[in-house]
Amino acid sequence: MAEPAKTLDGWYVLHDFRKMDWAAWKQLSPHERESIISEFSNMISSLEETEGNLEGSHGLFSIVGQKADFMLMLLRPTMDELHEIENIFNKSRLAEFTIPVYSYVSVVELSNYLPSDKDPNEDPEIQARLKPILPKWQYVCFYPMDKRRDGEDNWYMLNMEDRQEMMRSHGMIGRSYAGKVKQIISGSVGFDDWEWGVTLFAHDVLQFKKLVYEMRFDEVSARYGDFGSFYVGIRMEKETIPSFFHV
Amino acid sequence: MAEPAKTLDGWYVLHDFRKMDWAAWKQLSPHERESIISEFSNMISSLEETEGNLEGSHGLFSIVGQKADFMLMLLRPTMDELHEIENIFNKSRLAEFTIPVYSYVSVVELSNYLPSDKDPNEDPEIQARLKPILPKWQYVCFYPMDKRRDGEDNWYMLNMEDRQEMMRSHGMIGRSYAGKVKQIISGSVGFDDWEWGVTLFAHDVLQFKKLVYEMRFDEVSARYGDFGSFYVGIRMEKETIPSFFHV
Amino acid sequence: MAEPAKTLDGWYVLHDFRKMDWAAWKQLSPHERESIISEFSNMISSLEETEGNLEGSHGLFSIVGQKADFMLMLLRPTMDELHEIENIFNKSRLAEFTIPVYSYVSVVELSNYLPSDKDPNEDPEIQARLKPILPKWQYVCFYPMDKRRDGEDNWYMLNMEDRQEMMRSHGMIGRSYAGKVKQIISGSVGFDDWEWGVTLFAHDVLQFKKLVYEMRFDEVSARYGDFGSFYVGIRMEKETIPSFFHV
Amino acid sequence: MAEPAKTLDGWYVLHDFRKMDWAAWKQLSPHERESIISEFSNMISSLEETEGNLEGSHGLFSIVGQKADFMLMLLRPTMDELHEIENIFNKSRLAEFTIPVYSYVSVVELSNYLPSDKDPNEDPEIQARLKPILPKWQYVCFYPMDKRRDGEDNWYMLNMEDRQEMMRSHGMIGRSYAGKVKQIISGSVGFDDWEWGVTLFAHDVLQFKKLVYEMRFDEVSARYGDFGSFYVGIRMEKETIPSFFHV
Amino acid sequence: MAEPAKTLDGWYVLHDFRKMDWAAWKQLSPHERESIISEFSNMISSLEETEGNLEGSHGLFSIVGQKADFMLMLLRPTMDELHEIENIFNKSRLAEFTIPVYSYVSVVELSNYLPSDKDPNEDPEIQARLKPILPKWQYVCFYPMDKRRDGEDNWYMLNMEDRQEMMRSHGMIGRSYAGKVKQIISGSVGFDDWEWGVTLFAHDVLQFKKLVYEMRFDEVSARYGDFGSFYVGIRMEKETIPSFFHV
Repeated sequence: MAEPAKTLDGWYVLHDFRKMDWAAWKQLSPHERESIISEFSNMISSLEETEGNLEGSHGLFSIVGQKADFMLMLLRPTMDELHEIENIFNKSRLAEFTIPVYSYVSVVELSNYLPSDKDPNEDPEIQARLKPILPKWQYVCFYPMDKRRDGEDNWYMLNMEDRQEMMRSHGMIGRSYAGKVKQIISGSVGFDDWEWGVTLFAHDVLQFKKLVYEMRFDEVSARYGDFGSFYVGIRMEKETIPSFFHV
Repeated sequence: MAEPAKTLDGWYVLHDFRKMDWAAWKQLSPHERESIISEFSNMISSLEETEGNLEGSHGLFSIVGQKADFMLMLLRPTMDELHEIENIFNKSRLAEFTIPVYSYVSVVELSNYLPSDKDPNEDPEIQARLKPILPKWQYVCFYPMDKRRDGEDNWYMLNMEDRQEMMRSHGMIGRSYAGKVKQIISGSVGFDDWEWGVTLFAHDVLQFKKLVYEMRFDEVSARYGDFGSFYVGIRMEKETIPSFFHV
Repeated sequence: MAEPAKTLDGWYVLHDFRKMDWAAWKQLSPHERESIISEFSNMISSLEETEGNLEGSHGLFSIVGQKADFMLMLLRPTMDELHEIENIFNKSRLAEFTIPVYSYVSVVELSNYLPSDKDPNEDPEIQARLKPILPKWQYVCFYPMDKRRDGEDNWYMLNMEDRQEMMRSHGMIGRSYAGKVKQIISGSVGFDDWEWGVTLFAHDVLQFKKLVYEMRFDEVSARYGDFGSFYVGIRMEKETIPSFFHV
Repeated sequence: MAEPAKTLDGWYVLHDFRKMDWAAWKQLSPHERESIISEFSNMISSLEETEGNLEGSHGLFSIVGQKADFMLMLLRPTMDELHEIENIFNKSRLAEFTIPVYSYVSVVELSNYLPSDKDPNEDPEIQARLKPILPKWQYVCFYPMDKRRDGEDNWYMLNMEDRQEMMRSHGMIGRSYAGKVKQIISGSVGFDDWEWGVTLFAHDVLQFKKLVYEMRFDEVSARYGDFGSFYVGIRMEKETIPSFFHV
Repeated sequence: MAEPAKTLDGWYVLHDFRKMDWAAWKQLSPHERESIISEFSNMISSLEETEGNLEGSHGLFSIVGQKADFMLMLLRPTMDELHEIENIFNKSRLAEFTIPVYSYVSVVELSNYLPSDKDPNEDPEIQARLKPILPKWQYVCFYPMDKRRDGEDNWYMLNMEDRQEMMRSHGMIGRSYAGKVKQIISGSVGFDDWEWGVTLFAHDVLQFKKLVYEMRFDEVSARYGDFGSFYVGIRMEKETIPSFFHV
């Protein structure tokens, strides 16, 4: 048996993708729509308060293309808190005009492929990465992925050194995008259908393509990466919520 | 032909996943909702009575993410009893406000990979594992799986000794999580689309991820495991049913 | 080119799986429901008459789990008769309250893998197997399957002797379940999406699992079998139709 | 690079599969239904006129099983004419009571695997095969297919001679069914999701199964064939349209 | 690690495929339909104005077969502009009568496989290819694709020279269709589910089939190409919009 990777696990994460039922939404009176938007904005304000207290984080994004209209990304210290917010939203009035199209359940993860001599429970940088306040950058990209187990290309049969070596090379590509792309890796083994979720943030949306394409030539992706659907979106400020929902 | 594994088979199992149609549910009067919740709670009380008599078991869970809103797991000595409860629920008033999204039909299974010198029909521990009262732990994880039959990685072409050796190593990982994770394996060959269903219970939801990830490096999973969708949920007490359905 | 197997072909078969729209069904008056159930029972009576004349056969089964609520299995000497009954049912009142979820079109098949010195057109046992009256046993299991054509594991590139040898070994497992499981193999190459449909009948539902699992270790399944969805159900007598539909 | 096959291309083809919404259809008054059936029959009459002028062809078939209720197969000299008829049907009253379930866009194709010394533009037999009037035989079978590109089994990496040799052997099986099965091959590379559509016609539906099964043992299918869904149907005369739609 | 390809990236692209809900559309009064068509035509006029200013481009196409009724292809300098038009359309009255069936998000891409000694930022031909005004040719073909990473057939593990050599051969086939087929390659790594979208334009729809089929024998497609769904359509002039929507 290959030596398993060890992980540090931080906040739990829910990515919640929704389509709008614009036809039904338009049938409401302007007053009703305003009232529903106001309820939703209040929910976002409450999330902001939690974020201000460093007790969680969130992001709201308008998604490009037909896969979804918006995505709410939520981070909380416990799965229970995450699920409670999910249920509150599901019972909200706005939710009646949305169609759930995809969600992803995971937990922020750091692995021991990149060795460190620090005590993770003490190190503030590690703690900040495990409990990340989402960057307020303009663009978001989300995709789930697996490490492949297919004939000769079986990640989980490799020894630790080979995996570490490949992850190091992979990490170096990531670091060369410092200041351009921030990434949050969240593990979902046992929680959802892929092994990891990857959430990227950028000021320039083209950097997502450049980073992911460059990485695809790296052995760890080329031979061992299996990728799910990609979602790309644009950050929505609380102030732009009314105009997003305006019809 | 490889020597087939032999199994001991216990109670039949149905995992029944449902989404709520919250929009329709909200259109009911509070009185109607109360009446429906009461009918559902009575059904759960009746299941509890059966469990009290050790004639079956069940669990009700709120599912995280969009895959489902809740899951009812049922165990009964016969497929017919299982199906009867399923039909009663399908005809109940609550069911009108649910959307069936996934189900799984199986039977609790112990295999002869882990040899024993006990008479299974006499041994109370074996009997208790075949007819398990579900633990009242906080979290549940369900996923179906196959043993792979793909080119060089064909579980069913291996000889019994190799399979036993690998299952033993696998079992040792499981045992190292004693007190943290309980698992119920149910076989579904001939009953449903995968070969097994795995249901895990934990006090700490993170232990699901740790266990399943550690096992993935074990050859029996790394080379021979194919996994379906993962569902993670939080146990619902009968007392919390009204608040779960409250809108 | 490998020598093709030859087949004897008997009655045409339609497996028709339906879900009930219980919510719509409940909105009818009891009188309307009774009238619809009566129409459906009359259709079943007419099928029974045909079966009594040995001009076809059928079975009605309640399906366990969410895949379907019931399945009607029909056998007739011609595809046209099969299709006519299908159309009559589609236009019936009950059909308005059902949702078609799966169907399978095939023809009862015997292959020349198991050689015989009998004239199939004269031999009454072979004729009875080609035009089978379905056993009135308690449980049914249906699944479609292919023989694999994948790299080294390509059934259709094997020579006749190797295929015959493997089918013989396979048949011996089947025979060891005599009295416990009856099987009807129907071929669907050119008719539906898989190459065969397998319909099993048993008095004890667990025998489905035992048979299919034991066979999976046999090379013909282990290396060459690809399986679709499995459906398991419980036989419905005409007398139990009203209680099945009672709400 | 392997030498590409060359093709002769004839009439464009649309296979249009529809389900009926029988419940909605039954809610119409008999008069309305008659009027809609009459509109549809007139459309078929217009197609017959075109066929009489040898400016196209068509067939209407009742499909067995739940995949569809009927299929309209259309052939025309240009893609534009095909699309115009499609749009006329989509806007017709009958279409309001149908649910589109599958369609296939292709063009009748002859390949140069079967060499000829004739000038295809002059040869009347070749012209008739490129612009085929559909046979008025009782049964139809449609399925799409690819030539496989998978590891060692890569059709497109074979040299022309090997492909020709295999196609010749394949063609000989086809010819042995002369008078029993007619086939129309239409190419769909660049038009639809598979590389070819195969439409078979027979007087005896069992011949579809015999032909396709025999071919599956031929190397070109056994190693290089990937097949989509199979649809089987029964020819509908214009005169039987009213009874097909009668409820 | 293989040397990554470098790309030049131009305008962002959205392919937006829609079905019409003809039944609902027909329930409107002629006056309402006219008003909605007029709103949509005005939107197209506004797109034409942008195109006239060389600040973007677009095409409207009627799609053959059931996959979609029409497709709007949009190109803009930024993802934000693209998304803004998408949102305007989603909120338009016409959109209420459409069903989104597929979309694709990408960016026009030129790769360094075909080396050049020009400065791309200065060269007008390269700039014109990065910011293309769509040709007003009669037919369109769209499909997404990946380069394969499967065992021995792993594009991303090849060295740059081998990839360049294969892409050169591929490009030569493309050039032999000059004047017959124009193609726009757009990259979607990090933006959508496949790595590239390919949009072809032709005067003669048959040229799509000839080009794509010929390329399939080229090693870069034969061994390394994985293809998604193919969509074929016919260009719609603004003047033909009313007749397209006329019922």
